[in-house]
Amino acid sequence: MKLATLNSGRDGELVVVSRDLSRAVRATDIAPTLQQAIEDWDTLAPRLEARYAELNAGTAEGDFALEMAALHSPLPRTYQWADGSAYLNHVQLVRQARGAEMPETFWTDPLMYQGGGDRFLAPTEHIEAISEEHGIDFEGEIAVITDDVPMAVTPEAAMGHIKLIMLVNDVSLRGLIPGELAKGFGFFQAKPASSFSPVAVTPDELGDAWQKGRVHLPLSVHLNGEAFGVPEAGPDMIFGFPELVAHAARTRHLGAGAVIGSGTVSNPDADGGPGKPMRDGGVGYSCLAEVRMVEKILYDEVKTPFMRFGDRVRIEMFDRDGQSIFGAIDQQVVEYRPR
Amino acid sequence: MKLATLNSGRDGELVVVSRDLSRAVRATDIAPTLQQAIEDWDTLAPRLEARYAELNAGTAEGDFALEMAALHSPLPRTYQWADGSAYLNHVQLVRQARGAEMPETFWTDPLMYQGGGDRFLAPTEHIEAISEEHGIDFEGEIAVITDDVPMAVTPEAAMGHIKLIMLVNDVSLRGLIPGELAKGFGFFQAKPASSFSPVAVTPDELGDAWQKGRVHLPLSVHLNGEAFGVPEAGPDMIFGFPELVAHAARTRHLGAGAVIGSGTVSNPDADGGPGKPMRDGGVGYSCLAEVRMVEKILYDEVKTPFMRFGDRVRIEMFDRDGQSIFGAIDQQVVEYRPR
Repeated sequence: MKLATLNSGRDGELVVVSRDLSRAVRATDIAPTLQQAIEDWDTLAPRLEARYAELNAGTAEGDFALEMAALHSPLPRTYQWADGSAYLNHVQLVRQARGAEMPETFWTDPLMYQGGGDRFLAPTEHIEAISEEHGIDFEGEIAVITDDVPMAVTPEAAMGHIKLIMLVNDVSLRGLIPGELAKGFGFFQAKPASSFSPVAVTPDELGDAWQKGRVHLPLSVHLNGEAFGVPEAGPDMIFGFPELVAHAARTRHLGAGAVIGSGTVSNPDADGGPGKPMRDGGVGYSCLAEVRMVEKILYDEVKTPFMRFGDRVRIEMFDRDGQSIFGAIDQQVVEYRPR
Repeated sequence: MKLATLNSGRDGELVVVSRDLSRAVRATDIAPTLQQAIEDWDTLAPRLEARYAELNAGTAEGDFALEMAALHSPLPRTYQWADGSAYLNHVQLVRQARGAEMPETFWTDPLMYQGGGDRFLAPTEHIEAISEEHGIDFEGEIAVITDDVPMAVTPEAAMGHIKLIMLVNDVSLRGLIPGELAKGFGFFQAKPASSFSPVAVTPDELGDAWQKGRVHLPLSVHLNGEAFGVPEAGPDMIFGFPELVAHAARTRHLGAGAVIGSGTVSNPDADGGPGKPMRDGGVGYSCLAEVRMVEKILYDEVKTPFMRFGDRVRIEMFDRDGQSIFGAIDQQVVEYRPR
């Protein structure tokens, strides 16, 4: 099943989306918002699935041609947004960039930061930033939405709480990160509002690409219309989503609608190297910080700047038949002007 | 005006509470929940104020005797919970406890961590913990609730977005903090669900105790029925709430219902020393970590254990006439048993 949220008011309006993303039909009579659907998922999901079947069969009443620009992120805001960092190649590269070693325990104990969920960006909304000096970067990721998860859940039990999957652009202000991390309390100003793919899908939509709580497909990232990365999201995800959900729930209950992110998708080389830019025959990256670090390693010189006002990033994922699964995150960076 | 939330469903039901906390009347016809009230505050606050006036005058229809145990935290969950650490005496002591210096910049750049708001505890709900080994601690704090705050707001403008004030118990698992902070991403498992005072009040309720965005009254903390701390919340708050709100909003818009905390209330001595326990004639503390550090300094020996299953903490604030302003947070620690 594929679900989305029409951009209207603070929480939007729930729609069911056809498998090929071409059409949609309102589901507000079943649940006004995705948040309300996830809070009563076991009861409501079968009704939403029935409408999805009708929509795909062309028998849904009131269906309409879907305009991606009309959609907000599936959850325009959420009470819990926690982002893991499960691709350790990314962790190694960004730490290398700031001269920090990666501790051995990172291979067994997931990294995760607490994000702010009060106002996500829509998938095609401008990324407002107050200064290019902040080192504006994108991070292409995958995230899941859970229902209520009890404290101290096991990874095995956590798997059953994963109800929906989507893509993320975890916008990062690299210039603010070293100062914030030095203070010891983690990210805050360095992680402004994130955006999500226009469509969230149930795990069964991924077929055999969904294995052990990982999405085994490449993530497609374009910067200003040029291919920037197609890293594989499956094999190098050291901790799967069930492990990340269990990590988040170790000392607390998670409320329905919790969004748990994978961290930036990143592949090392087969020989353990840090990967290569696409122009050098590699699969590229899903954030600028990594390619900058690799440039420094390969050429002893950072060539790629961070995002400037006017730059555009596009993040999408295609199935093995080339069909977009989630629709695209497609955002331009603009200078923030106080309103 | 004083507002509270009946514990019912995920977001509860909005009630207006009398100034003396003895009576309440439903306000669900004005706004079903406090979240909805804060989202449309300018329109709805005058109607809530009118009901508050009726309630205090004894002319409100349908008012009832208020049972504090029937209340949830004013916002049972929220999209944005960010906690500052504006009492630097606390910061100095807890850093000293883990052998870390306090950088000079901490006097000019507020510390703040991103908390998780998906499932707050009710003011009298048990604090479930999976192990006493985690170093279970309370932190007595003050917090404000804002309406929508625009990105890059100034502290001057932020003042006008502060709509309600309440108390917090920012439950902390001290044993998990050093490991988490060493990972660099800040607190996560070490900061499980917080709880808030049963009643939230508008700034005018504090009269001249509300000055420059600080609450100039002592915070009363009891541990297992014994007085543990009465630190003054006003003078040693290095950053006022307007500065903390502006810090949180520097690179993002804050959604209505954002909760911004003060950090643990703490007073140094007049001579700059770290204060004294109440039994030694000091004003005491509002968390165990501080008294433990002071014991180590004064007696070269930590005497006070962290909380054990069965221990109880009570956090309250009284006006100059001895009247409780917000009602009490009163919680017992219990062992978590998976349900």
